[in-house]
Amino acid sequence: MTWQQLTDEQQQEVQRQLLIIKRGAADIVPEEALKQKVMKAVVTGIPLKVKLGLDPSAPDIHIGHTVVLQKLRQFQDLGHEVQLIIGDFTGRIGDPTGKSETRKQLSEEDVQRNAQTYQTQLTKILDLSKTTFYYNSAWLGELKFDDVLKLAGKVTVARMLERDDFANRYAANQPIHVHEFFYPLMQGYDSVSLETDIELGGTDQTFNILMGRTLQGAYEMKEGQVAILMPLLEGLDGVQKMSKSLRNYIGIDEHPNDIFGKTMSIPDTLMLKYYELTTTLSYADLHELSQSLEEGTIHPRDAKMKLAKAYVSMYHGVQAADEAEQHFITVFQKKALPDAIEEKLLRVNLLEEGQISIIQLLVALDLQVSNGEARRSVEQGAVKINEQKIADIHAKITPIDGDIVQVGKRKFVRLKLS
Amino acid sequence: MTWQQLTDEQQQEVQRQLLIIKRGAADIVPEEALKQKVMKAVVTGIPLKVKLGLDPSAPDIHIGHTVVLQKLRQFQDLGHEVQLIIGDFTGRIGDPTGKSETRKQLSEEDVQRNAQTYQTQLTKILDLSKTTFYYNSAWLGELKFDDVLKLAGKVTVARMLERDDFANRYAANQPIHVHEFFYPLMQGYDSVSLETDIELGGTDQTFNILMGRTLQGAYEMKEGQVAILMPLLEGLDGVQKMSKSLRNYIGIDEHPNDIFGKTMSIPDTLMLKYYELTTTLSYADLHELSQSLEEGTIHPRDAKMKLAKAYVSMYHGVQAADEAEQHFITVFQKKALPDAIEEKLLRVNLLEEGQISIIQLLVALDLQVSNGEARRSVEQGAVKINEQKIADIHAKITPIDGDIVQVGKRKFVRLKLS
Repeated sequence: MTWQQLTDEQQQEVQRQLLIIKRGAADIVPEEALKQKVMKAVVTGIPLKVKLGLDPSAPDIHIGHTVVLQKLRQFQDLGHEVQLIIGDFTGRIGDPTGKSETRKQLSEEDVQRNAQTYQTQLTKILDLSKTTFYYNSAWLGELKFDDVLKLAGKVTVARMLERDDFANRYAANQPIHVHEFFYPLMQGYDSVSLETDIELGGTDQTFNILMGRTLQGAYEMKEGQVAILMPLLEGLDGVQKMSKSLRNYIGIDEHPNDIFGKTMSIPDTLMLKYYELTTTLSYADLHELSQSLEEGTIHPRDAKMKLAKAYVSMYHGVQAADEAEQHFITVFQKKALPDAIEEKLLRVNLLEEGQISIIQLLVALDLQVSNGEARRSVEQGAVKINEQKIADIHAKITPIDGDIVQVGKRKFVRLKLS
Repeated sequence: MTWQQLTDEQQQEVQRQLLIIKRGAADIVPEEALKQKVMKAVVTGIPLKVKLGLDPSAPDIHIGHTVVLQKLRQFQDLGHEVQLIIGDFTGRIGDPTGKSETRKQLSEEDVQRNAQTYQTQLTKILDLSKTTFYYNSAWLGELKFDDVLKLAGKVTVARMLERDDFANRYAANQPIHVHEFFYPLMQGYDSVSLETDIELGGTDQTFNILMGRTLQGAYEMKEGQVAILMPLLEGLDGVQKMSKSLRNYIGIDEHPNDIFGKTMSIPDTLMLKYYELTTTLSYADLHELSQSLEEGTIHPRDAKMKLAKAYVSMYHGVQAADEAEQHFITVFQKKALPDAIEEKLLRVNLLEEGQISIIQLLVALDLQVSNGEARRSVEQGAVKINEQKIADIHAKITPIDGDIVQVGKRKFVRLKLS
């Protein structure tokens, strides 16, 4: 299909779609193929199949994840279809070497429960009527040894060892087990199985997504899928990729006050990136905001409050957003807390699975000198964390950087994990 | 089990067996484990399971193959059991890349027919009552993707790339497809499945056989199999490994006169190696023969005739051996052929699939000047190859080095391919 074969309206529609699709993408491979696919969809009226793989072991969606999810939503708004893959096959296998803690084996129930959690959370971003969920065990679980050999015969060892992490480990004499080669192959085979047109992912997924394109070719599909690679979003620390394990994330299911408060702690320099990648702000509005910040006609704090309010609004509704804003203003801006709160370090090795008892916390932060004294102040209702009263002496706390721990009217510390 | 726990008789029996087992072996890995296995077998009376894998695509057994087969027979004579694996699973798959001609896909019928051929030929060497045939599709064909991943998780990529041919190809930037890693894994998994104690093979099988030991360990079998690695036998050219494709072989199903004649063409220097590895000659007799040759009390030609006779006797019976010997003496030693026969080169590129028409052959060797003349001499019964008359003008010949081509009573040439 050539550009000249399209009517003026069709050409305009293709250009409109490409503009939206390309917004914020770090890379599109190959870009020409994307144009072809969109042209075909516009002319035939057949929607594109746009795929995203979900990790079945970590169903808590945070703002970092929403970068690709927002992009999926844009595709849906353009009339295309979304394929969400729950990678239950790999999840159920775990790591055959038994060495990786992060690849723990999930039970069928785990997978089901996590999928349910996803579905509940995703309804806040995607149009579920245009979304199909797939469990990749449906096809991968059916493959027999000869099918697997056929699959493995499509790629070379050298190609596999080009993947950054494999290359690095191989060079450093760190073991790569042969089965690990199958993770990209499985992800690619999903695309073969579902005849995916476009696969989304972070830039760290480049190799795996292009493998899908390679495999589709090897399985004789005429037009391989296109990779749309989105930038990785830095977390609250402003440096590392937002992730649960680094505790630098904003979860979309968190309490509105927490979402608001955490958003306010984003470095100013990242604010526009957050806006561009994780909100539905239009190009024009984004441009205006950028200019206003540059000219100083809007204060960064106010722009950030607008972002925080947008997040709470998206994930908990407009009313919750108003309340969270009010709470923030009351607690952090107008009232109570002294301007400069002393920062205290809390040693991470005191935590067990990220938690610490309230009693231990107060003593560790030198807010109380003994367990007995700490217990009493909790019982008396004098202890607050981020303005929320902790009255149960058995309470377990999950501390994060910036938590304000308060005893009575005078003692405050700002907690920092070390 | 320690050596001291054995009775004197048991110790003697173990030593007797080890002496026989080790005879001629190029390497035994690990040797200490072999001793343990034999000790256990002697004490418990439970025979060892000794495995050999057969290539389902090439069922014609030649003397080179008999090196491992004779070793298997020795195990049987010591009371142990033989596991013969027909690798039908790999044979039925072929090469998924479709690139390798040597890995052509075999049909179920091909495999069955080849297995039948093996069985018929092997009955001349093995005691089939102590031999069990297995088709590895029985277990490999049942594996599903998750089993395959488990299998692949047992070894590292670096370990695989240690295999000589992989290492060389990787270094030379020649493609290795991921499925190729599974050939050693499959062979090793056969040993897991059959709880093999000992696997035999040529020294070129070292990596694959040790993989079986590794995998047995990974699948938590206490005592991994022992590799008994036999030397590779040079073919008639005295240099390259005996193989069908190099046409330097003696097939056990060949005509007795051919077996005899080809054996007589072995270089003298290799004769003792052939005796040691491919006959049932005792240590004592082998030692005596070696000494007699050294002292010149036996002529190499006579020692070689004894070897030739032994082969025909083993594979076609004593009577055939006597006849073949008589034929050889009549034709090649006493009669007809002049002492010095002129050698003539025949260009290999004149052959089609190894064959040439008798007419073309006579002309190419300058025994006749024209096709017409050649045709007439064939029709008159004047043409012989190795003393056998060729009377059909449409006959196709498969020439090999040393063939004596004769026209009438005077014209002789000794053919050499070039």
